[in-house]
Amino acid sequence: MAKPHFADLSAFRAQLAAAPGPDAGAAAAARARNGVLTKPPGALGRLEDLAIWYAGWRGDPRPRIERPQVIVFAGNHGVAARGVSAFPAEVTAQMVANFRAGGAAINQLAQVFGARIDIHPLDLDRPTADFTAAPAMDEAGFLAALTAGWEAVDSRADLLVTGEMGIANTTAAAAVAAALHGGPAADWTGRGTGVDDAGLALKSRVVAEGLARHADALADPLEALRRLGGRELAAMAGAIARARAERIPVILDGFICTAAAAVLERAAPGALDHAVAGHVSDEPGHARLLARLGKAPLLSLGLRLGEGTGAALAIGVLKGALACHSGMATFAEAGVTGG
Amino acid sequence: MAKPHFADLSAFRAQLAAAPGPDAGAAAAARARNGVLTKPPGALGRLEDLAIWYAGWRGDPRPRIERPQVIVFAGNHGVAARGVSAFPAEVTAQMVANFRAGGAAINQLAQVFGARIDIHPLDLDRPTADFTAAPAMDEAGFLAALTAGWEAVDSRADLLVTGEMGIANTTAAAAVAAALHGGPAADWTGRGTGVDDAGLALKSRVVAEGLARHADALADPLEALRRLGGRELAAMAGAIARARAERIPVILDGFICTAAAAVLERAAPGALDHAVAGHVSDEPGHARLLARLGKAPLLSLGLRLGEGTGAALAIGVLKGALACHSGMATFAEAGVTGG
Repeated sequence: MAKPHFADLSAFRAQLAAAPGPDAGAAAAARARNGVLTKPPGALGRLEDLAIWYAGWRGDPRPRIERPQVIVFAGNHGVAARGVSAFPAEVTAQMVANFRAGGAAINQLAQVFGARIDIHPLDLDRPTADFTAAPAMDEAGFLAALTAGWEAVDSRADLLVTGEMGIANTTAAAAVAAALHGGPAADWTGRGTGVDDAGLALKSRVVAEGLARHADALADPLEALRRLGGRELAAMAGAIARARAERIPVILDGFICTAAAAVLERAAPGALDHAVAGHVSDEPGHARLLARLGKAPLLSLGLRLGEGTGAALAIGVLKGALACHSGMATFAEAGVTGG
Repeated sequence: MAKPHFADLSAFRAQLAAAPGPDAGAAAAARARNGVLTKPPGALGRLEDLAIWYAGWRGDPRPRIERPQVIVFAGNHGVAARGVSAFPAEVTAQMVANFRAGGAAINQLAQVFGARIDIHPLDLDRPTADFTAAPAMDEAGFLAALTAGWEAVDSRADLLVTGEMGIANTTAAAAVAAALHGGPAADWTGRGTGVDDAGLALKSRVVAEGLARHADALADPLEALRRLGGRELAAMAGAIARARAERIPVILDGFICTAAAAVLERAAPGALDHAVAGHVSDEPGHARLLARLGKAPLLSLGLRLGEGTGAALAIGVLKGALACHSGMATFAEAGVTGG
């Protein structure tokens, strides 16, 4: 694992608090350009908003997406031993090998949309602690995972997707989401890769146990992530925070990615202003969590795979939005009546 | 305009009736492959169904999308003189020039998703008749427009998007949709490129006038298209029928494209089995029409531009689906537990 970039959690909190905003001038110039392109006002719907939002974050009124980066973080979870997943824990490492060999869904989608892909397994042979018995990570381990995410981001990227792989990590995500937003464990717990009714009931009980075990310490979102999350969730949070520092727009993936990202938003409201929701997954807690974050998903296609797949698919939408915005002729250029 | 490919409308009807279905063997093989790819069953949601559907139509259990074709048909409408559009009729020809110069939204999207684009203006200097006074097209003109669409399809394409441009063509589409599916004109009439409340009320009255004028002749879907539609609508219907004959899957665009396509489905149930709905537009009749066709849209992003833009954006989704299906490793290939 990477040497901690942050001396302690206070340094990470300070980073979040000091994060830059978008370039208002670039956003205003993009909005003005959008108004004179050869189309009726508003006719490209959300594509127009996406282009203006992206232009603001990149500080460029006429940008293109040319260097998207997909990062897949993998982690193993002590809570997997409780039987909360339909797959055995060794699948995490097997899938990392599959990512490296180019055989997984995320590899195909990254290729279709011209994204670089990086794979970061995080101490797979040393699962985090079972959160029903102890904090998933100690402070040093949590900082190391945040740092691994922070350092995985290519500062020259112009778009970031963070994905994950980790048997039992919908259980961890459900616990984190419940800690951040309240409500019964069952509201945030879903079938993940496909547990049956008995598996779902067990999973919900395990989440509730974790929430009860750490109840006194969950008011702080970062502490909730340390105690209930996992290394790949912490790394995604670190990467999304780094993207903000670099003004790299982010497309959020599914439930696990969004739970990790929601930690940042709860720790520093506005911390996800540089992020859009790529899709809403079939994991029922995801729609609930996106609603709490006020983020409308770009796609709704029933995906529930993780890896970054839903967000990677949305790269195409964002590329399309920017291509229209930056490539279209204006009414004046095209000699079309109506500008 | 092209010389009629069909001697008369009966020949076109016979073509629809004789259209081929998908290759059941290829679809079954694709379904079997889908079941052993390195992901939990069903985890790619609609992408899995899309891949199997596409494989069946192409007769290939492991296909890719490599030669998508976008065709934009343009037409002018006599009914434009009734003041039903926010833009003057000369904009149709101006936008054709913009398409040819590469300056429109559809040009950018075709480029992003690697599609060939063809532009077919259809007798723009000779608008169709105002359908409140006479049939929009005579039989020869209607056959010529169907044929123009039929012949515009590249038989080597592996995916087709048909788009359109034509000032006043949401009015024509509303009249066609109402003729096909019944209900008051107001149910099918929307703001198009952006008419105000008074414009919307006028447009709805004009649609109702057209329906009343041709009431005796609207039971036949093709006759409804001839009397109430326009050349670009007829050409889209011709192109979509040709794609079926060539087993080229189609992505439907917005309200106007879908109204043209719905004519085929009403004329020969199942005629759109080779087509998916690329998106649902902001034109309110579109969601209604897709529901009647039983087609769930892939995207819902508030677009209402036409040109094929919503369908072109959905090429990315379909390319992603096929890349996953045809590029992923199986459990056995990757040595992952759980297949």
